[in-house]
Amino acid sequence: MLRLSPSGKERLLQGAHLQASFGGGEANVLVSLAALGHRTRFITFVPDNALGDAAAAELRKRGVGTDFVLRREGRLGLYFLEHGSGPRPSQVLYDRERSSLEKAGPGDVDWGRALKGVAWFHVTGITPALSPSAAALTEEGVREARAAGIKVSLDLNYRSKLWRYGKTAPEVMGGLAAAADILLANEEDCRKALGISAGTDSKAAADLRSAEKLTALVMERFPGLEALAVTLRGSLGADRNLWTAVLRTREGFWCGPSYDIFPVTDRVGAGDAFAAGFIHGWSRPFGPEKTLGFALAASCLKHTIPGDWNLISESEALGLLEGDGSGRIIR
Amino acid sequence: MLRLSPSGKERLLQGAHLQASFGGGEANVLVSLAALGHRTRFITFVPDNALGDAAAAELRKRGVGTDFVLRREGRLGLYFLEHGSGPRPSQVLYDRERSSLEKAGPGDVDWGRALKGVAWFHVTGITPALSPSAAALTEEGVREARAAGIKVSLDLNYRSKLWRYGKTAPEVMGGLAAAADILLANEEDCRKALGISAGTDSKAAADLRSAEKLTALVMERFPGLEALAVTLRGSLGADRNLWTAVLRTREGFWCGPSYDIFPVTDRVGAGDAFAAGFIHGWSRPFGPEKTLGFALAASCLKHTIPGDWNLISESEALGLLEGDGSGRIIR
Amino acid sequence: MLRLSPSGKERLLQGAHLQASFGGGEANVLVSLAALGHRTRFITFVPDNALGDAAAAELRKRGVGTDFVLRREGRLGLYFLEHGSGPRPSQVLYDRERSSLEKAGPGDVDWGRALKGVAWFHVTGITPALSPSAAALTEEGVREARAAGIKVSLDLNYRSKLWRYGKTAPEVMGGLAAAADILLANEEDCRKALGISAGTDSKAAADLRSAEKLTALVMERFPGLEALAVTLRGSLGADRNLWTAVLRTREGFWCGPSYDIFPVTDRVGAGDAFAAGFIHGWSRPFGPEKTLGFALAASCLKHTIPGDWNLISESEALGLLEGDGSGRIIR
Amino acid sequence: MLRLSPSGKERLLQGAHLQASFGGGEANVLVSLAALGHRTRFITFVPDNALGDAAAAELRKRGVGTDFVLRREGRLGLYFLEHGSGPRPSQVLYDRERSSLEKAGPGDVDWGRALKGVAWFHVTGITPALSPSAAALTEEGVREARAAGIKVSLDLNYRSKLWRYGKTAPEVMGGLAAAADILLANEEDCRKALGISAGTDSKAAADLRSAEKLTALVMERFPGLEALAVTLRGSLGADRNLWTAVLRTREGFWCGPSYDIFPVTDRVGAGDAFAAGFIHGWSRPFGPEKTLGFALAASCLKHTIPGDWNLISESEALGLLEGDGSGRIIR
Amino acid sequence: MLRLSPSGKERLLQGAHLQASFGGGEANVLVSLAALGHRTRFITFVPDNALGDAAAAELRKRGVGTDFVLRREGRLGLYFLEHGSGPRPSQVLYDRERSSLEKAGPGDVDWGRALKGVAWFHVTGITPALSPSAAALTEEGVREARAAGIKVSLDLNYRSKLWRYGKTAPEVMGGLAAAADILLANEEDCRKALGISAGTDSKAAADLRSAEKLTALVMERFPGLEALAVTLRGSLGADRNLWTAVLRTREGFWCGPSYDIFPVTDRVGAGDAFAAGFIHGWSRPFGPEKTLGFALAASCLKHTIPGDWNLISESEALGLLEGDGSGRIIR
Amino acid sequence: MLRLSPSGKERLLQGAHLQASFGGGEANVLVSLAALGHRTRFITFVPDNALGDAAAAELRKRGVGTDFVLRREGRLGLYFLEHGSGPRPSQVLYDRERSSLEKAGPGDVDWGRALKGVAWFHVTGITPALSPSAAALTEEGVREARAAGIKVSLDLNYRSKLWRYGKTAPEVMGGLAAAADILLANEEDCRKALGISAGTDSKAAADLRSAEKLTALVMERFPGLEALAVTLRGSLGADRNLWTAVLRTREGFWCGPSYDIFPVTDRVGAGDAFAAGFIHGWSRPFGPEKTLGFALAASCLKHTIPGDWNLISESEALGLLEGDGSGRIIR
Repeated sequence: MLRLSPSGKERLLQGAHLQASFGGGEANVLVSLAALGHRTRFITFVPDNALGDAAAAELRKRGVGTDFVLRREGRLGLYFLEHGSGPRPSQVLYDRERSSLEKAGPGDVDWGRALKGVAWFHVTGITPALSPSAAALTEEGVREARAAGIKVSLDLNYRSKLWRYGKTAPEVMGGLAAAADILLANEEDCRKALGISAGTDSKAAADLRSAEKLTALVMERFPGLEALAVTLRGSLGADRNLWTAVLRTREGFWCGPSYDIFPVTDRVGAGDAFAAGFIHGWSRPFGPEKTLGFALAASCLKHTIPGDWNLISESEALGLLEGDGSGRIIR
Repeated sequence: MLRLSPSGKERLLQGAHLQASFGGGEANVLVSLAALGHRTRFITFVPDNALGDAAAAELRKRGVGTDFVLRREGRLGLYFLEHGSGPRPSQVLYDRERSSLEKAGPGDVDWGRALKGVAWFHVTGITPALSPSAAALTEEGVREARAAGIKVSLDLNYRSKLWRYGKTAPEVMGGLAAAADILLANEEDCRKALGISAGTDSKAAADLRSAEKLTALVMERFPGLEALAVTLRGSLGADRNLWTAVLRTREGFWCGPSYDIFPVTDRVGAGDAFAAGFIHGWSRPFGPEKTLGFALAASCLKHTIPGDWNLISESEALGLLEGDGSGRIIR
Repeated sequence: MLRLSPSGKERLLQGAHLQASFGGGEANVLVSLAALGHRTRFITFVPDNALGDAAAAELRKRGVGTDFVLRREGRLGLYFLEHGSGPRPSQVLYDRERSSLEKAGPGDVDWGRALKGVAWFHVTGITPALSPSAAALTEEGVREARAAGIKVSLDLNYRSKLWRYGKTAPEVMGGLAAAADILLANEEDCRKALGISAGTDSKAAADLRSAEKLTALVMERFPGLEALAVTLRGSLGADRNLWTAVLRTREGFWCGPSYDIFPVTDRVGAGDAFAAGFIHGWSRPFGPEKTLGFALAASCLKHTIPGDWNLISESEALGLLEGDGSGRIIR
Repeated sequence: MLRLSPSGKERLLQGAHLQASFGGGEANVLVSLAALGHRTRFITFVPDNALGDAAAAELRKRGVGTDFVLRREGRLGLYFLEHGSGPRPSQVLYDRERSSLEKAGPGDVDWGRALKGVAWFHVTGITPALSPSAAALTEEGVREARAAGIKVSLDLNYRSKLWRYGKTAPEVMGGLAAAADILLANEEDCRKALGISAGTDSKAAADLRSAEKLTALVMERFPGLEALAVTLRGSLGADRNLWTAVLRTREGFWCGPSYDIFPVTDRVGAGDAFAAGFIHGWSRPFGPEKTLGFALAASCLKHTIPGDWNLISESEALGLLEGDGSGRIIR
Repeated sequence: MLRLSPSGKERLLQGAHLQASFGGGEANVLVSLAALGHRTRFITFVPDNALGDAAAAELRKRGVGTDFVLRREGRLGLYFLEHGSGPRPSQVLYDRERSSLEKAGPGDVDWGRALKGVAWFHVTGITPALSPSAAALTEEGVREARAAGIKVSLDLNYRSKLWRYGKTAPEVMGGLAAAADILLANEEDCRKALGISAGTDSKAAADLRSAEKLTALVMERFPGLEALAVTLRGSLGADRNLWTAVLRTREGFWCGPSYDIFPVTDRVGAGDAFAAGFIHGWSRPFGPEKTLGFALAASCLKHTIPGDWNLISESEALGLLEGDGSGRIIR
Repeated sequence: MLRLSPSGKERLLQGAHLQASFGGGEANVLVSLAALGHRTRFITFVPDNALGDAAAAELRKRGVGTDFVLRREGRLGLYFLEHGSGPRPSQVLYDRERSSLEKAGPGDVDWGRALKGVAWFHVTGITPALSPSAAALTEEGVREARAAGIKVSLDLNYRSKLWRYGKTAPEVMGGLAAAADILLANEEDCRKALGISAGTDSKAAADLRSAEKLTALVMERFPGLEALAVTLRGSLGADRNLWTAVLRTREGFWCGPSYDIFPVTDRVGAGDAFAAGFIHGWSRPFGPEKTLGFALAASCLKHTIPGDWNLISESEALGLLEGDGSGRIIR
């Protein structure tokens, strides 16, 4: 998606300049993985026009493989982001109806070629929320990946303004979760995309006890899951967030470090940065605890970077995880 | 529509900043009329979100009456404009599918209230090109205006990328032209929106002889027309245009002054500025020749102003018409 | 007034760009009221040049009625605003000598037409501080409004750099306060514009006990007052302010909620936003407590928005008042 | 003066950014002379605030001596400059009423110190146009300079919007011209500031024959003049100017080279750049012809530089004078 | 190289903003070829820091293969570009001493891998001008390419400020030209890099007769050359250039179309765009005449695009070649 | 040095704009002293090109004497500054190899003229870290200053990325410290530039006890020192710093006030601002305690100003020192 934001703390179109960048759940995860040193391949659809070209070019710039950024009729999804301040929340205005991705469906991807040499397949709950065909395409991808012995991760990423085409989120996401090896979510995602709740109020700050219970419920419901990570955000204002997460595997339960992030430069994409950090750690011999910590440190740093993308190296995230959050100048 | 342009002569999304402004055929005419001192009222549809609010606010800033800028479900149309240079043409990328206006239709406007106190009703060929309902709405408006004894002007404004819903332009535009008092067009509009040609090649520079013949053919076909003005643009590069027009009434035929505009700052909206200038002159006791000259001078000045809107006063346009094109500094 | 500010935290003219916007006490109140859904009318004077035109256009954009933005000889007042940071204060450099408003006087406004259909008349202590004629014009307006049965509110808005024409603030403001129904002020205003003090040091943080005493003294002195609201600002740095207020009516005394605003994006206009919020609540069936809370919530949000103007809707202010200050992203 | 301009070809306050720089007749001459390698000293008055400080700092940056940029009560003059395009003229909106300079008068400068070591004293017709006291101050300065045996040059610089304080331009400027050694002017200046005309219409392009006659008349009227240079501008649009000049001394009459400048980046300050180029050539052993050519070449280059100031070295101007106007890239 | 330019027509560091982009002879050719649809691979050296990373990322964005953008100690070369206007030339200030590329030498590239699958090898005269080791590396590359049966093209690209390490350009470039299949140059290149002149003065506008003679001399001197293209630029000001070229093969001599480019947006990189267009045409079945025309049309369009890079598609260049230089808006 | 920074919190070259300003240890001290009202003279070397000219011009703008900003072959040093946020540190990428200053050496300065009328000579540890010749030049300057009876201050300013030419920092800095009257440092400087440690870990927050011990050790080692001030920075994130300092003279030991600076706008140059504040206080009759406090207050304010330079007046720093850190708006 093309992201358009006003300058600084201006309200949308208060001034006449918009900052244009690109973002979107899956793209964000891939850019972050590329920054962490992985070879990546984005399978998606964009229109065959200057906007689609620019989206592919920016992804390529960040090291994402774009051979499967396919062209088809439709729009490039847009979103407008107004940055909040203090008690005034940031606001996202989506404009992605009739996107090329929404119009794509099963059969549009040559999965044999697309999955060749692939070790990990990541999907989010945004694509299946767009249209029946996009949901079917997602399901097809997951099926193909499993059949090819590829590890599958799913970020639930529930968006209340989507899911307008007839099916509810749990109807679709339940099936995808059942097929995944790794599940990533926040509390609200579990409740709204899976229909599983531990009685928490998602507006409240991190409630680790509820998270412990919630993760147990989800792991029980989806016996195929290897691991489930749930992020917990406490919002003390648009500029100040508490950020932590928990991890449950078949072997145990871990609470990660908690970060008090102030000021927040840009929180959009932090969940995706967490997913990328998690995939990175899980595919390295980090073990669960360090994987969780790494994902948190990487996504904590995301909050300091303008744009959707977490332009952070492995050593920068490890530095924070290992305790240097002093921000002391490097020269 | 929200217009988004890169800086200076950059290609689209070559850089990360976009300049946001508002434009679109009818809006442009109204802003120009307001700048010329008229009370105006825009009858249109925008979404009920921050983009729709901003569009209405900008129109209000320019003095356009916005009580009938109505809200309904749908998108705000967008367009991306890349400014050309020399032999490299400017390019417009429309993104207006599913706009609120496209979804509007007959019965959505309370014409009794909307046309109260109105002396002139102007429509363009863009709205009817969007969808069957928008075409029917346009027809309804013209019908209501005529019934109320209001003068009707129509700018053909043919856009080849529209007219995708089944009907061809001539099928719809013919009826509208038959109901209009004043018709505004360029050569290509006549050919493609009305199916009337004098054998000219629209790419060529102004061919006055063809224009004389063409206007005669159109006036013959539409006996209800009081006047027909046809603009003629010769393009010697994205930055250099020749600009003139002809006028035919039942009483005679006039060729306007010709302007060699170099450099062109922004040619988008020049046709709309011509329409506004024409309406201004026609509703003042200027007579045909001065009306044509005024419309040309006003629209010549439009080429010097960034954005779709012709922010030019009557005295500025008269100054140019009366011969001061020296651009000598005023201080 | 035209407001000119350097970028970000730059000192004045440290760089070569200035951000131009419009502001000023009464304008700020009206823009805020328009954003809250009121029909408004600004009665003021600007020069008949491009600056006056632009001021009127921006007000119109924000929904303020500009039929009584009258033109007369003089300048458009300017002010330069340098944004502070931490212990470095923001600084305002006024340049409004010889403004059109300063030169206006009694008889320059056709009050019969200007006040037609008006339910509330708001004035501030800035206009009468400019010149004897501006003071007389303000007094004339208040008199005419009272005569027409219109409710009158007065924001004392003491500015030490004004009041240079011979009269002291208390000489003029006392009379205006005596004629008002609603009085808005801070502690310093009461002391310097009315000469009433409860012994507080205005530099100190909110001292509610003093405020209780102060409001009692003011209400006693001005028996015609229906209500008096006093804002209390504690400044913990240019970026961090404590913000609260008290309200006294003939029926009681209320302390509003207190907000710890950090970071402050732009505090200029917060008092005006409070006034607008107060007028909004008082003209709705909110009752005193909710009116005070609403005015505080609305003006708290003002601190998050660049420029003098509080571009906040009623529902946004109510959301904060009802407790959601989490700044959690809306999407 | 502080100069404020919108971006590119925008109309004034069409957008929200203004470019701030400094300019004004005498300042422009001095900056240009400093760039040509001269030691300079500016004798003027600015307010004792951040604007006055910034003005002095920018002059110092450009190498102008600022020990006599004196502080006194008043404003810093401002001007708003809208850049024209094609037939749309550039426009200057002055806002310099009540400036510190306007308020200055005889006795405010310690001429003994100010003129110590000075070889050339340059004044323009702008200062004496501001107020009686400023006129008297200018006269005092010229008198003191002559008494000290310093060469005096005067640029007539007629501005129709000034001269509002009772005296007409010829009443004051005649006396100054009578005291000057060198006079710089354009045709309109001679007509309006001295009341001497050769029957030319100042709007027309360069008319060398009239200029020959005009210069003879002026030299006759002012027998103390050593040399008189008159610039001739033909305006073929805001972006295209013809630029030449003539020179008359007691020994002869010379026509300089003519430049067709297209595009014009910024023509404000070109006359001042001419004056500086002339003073430079006259104070070097260039002789009349080369001095005239040098002044023209230097001021031709001024048209290519944004801002009032001609940031051009001697070798750059000589390069153009000697025939290299190819603009071929230097690398 | 990192390119840093001031805004618009400002002189270098006149303002405080610099526009950062990337450029340099070989990079420019590759970006242009990628835009024309070729798979490319850049063999070069950059430092292992954020600047080197950014350079590689921008190339990748434009579709250039960056697997052989190798890291080694040294700087990233910089250049500052001031855009000229009219008679004021653009100026380049190089700051590339001690670059990583300057320090590279024979043995630093694994040619076996680097040239695998490569059909065309392009070098310029800039790299060998940096240092003895860079010259030797270039020679090694050319030798390896020839040995592998890869076609070799050489753009002489003479830069007078380089060649400081002891050898003269002809000493080195003669050997490279002798090994090339295709030679690209302008008149000055032939004279200064090869020591071959036809008596033309390079400052003059295109002299086709001299070019005919010059190309014959060069082809005679280097019997291994298949084709030689010489570009001819006439500079009528920084904003206006005449642009054409001639081509000589063993079969004949062709003069290309001539373009009068006004305004020039950015001429840097035009020669590289010509080289890329030539390589494109030569590797397609265009034949000599169309290849020459295509290279000219593509590089003519380069002059309209900000930055070093020619972001033009094959169809855009063909459109111009086939005669549509009208710049007529596309919508 | 020319300093280049991306906008806001962007990573280096994330966007295409860089903010250009000038900085560097000694320049920063001088600009700050000029702002505090001192006459200053910068003795340094820059290249004879547009970058060197711009550096000198900016210094002159800030009131620094530039007669001894000498020109010689070499580069202008550059540095790229990426602003950190929260746990993400700011990063400096130096690019100053082969600078004019690095190439300068003994005999290049006419010390007799350069030190004429000078009362205080300040050097930092950066120049001697560049090259053997620059170290020798620094030593020469200190020797000459002492011989002329000028007070000498030395800021150790250790930079780990310098000192690459063979000698270690202690080898050179020990000699300079032995010759100085006043020494300024932080804990790391003492350890790395002098080899003196009190066992503190420099990453920890201010440890006053260690500082007491450390200063005693240094004063003992360098018996010629009159005073030693050591700054102590605690970094709680890139945006939040604790800032204090201690002072030891032969008469006593003082701890200064401690500032909690949040948000930090720009901390680069804060040490230099401290040095300037210290020199200011020491050369006024402030006495040790007030001098220390003044230096801290001045440098605390530096953190609020973009760029290397502390554009703060004496009265502003005194205001903070005397307790007004409220940041309350001044109008």
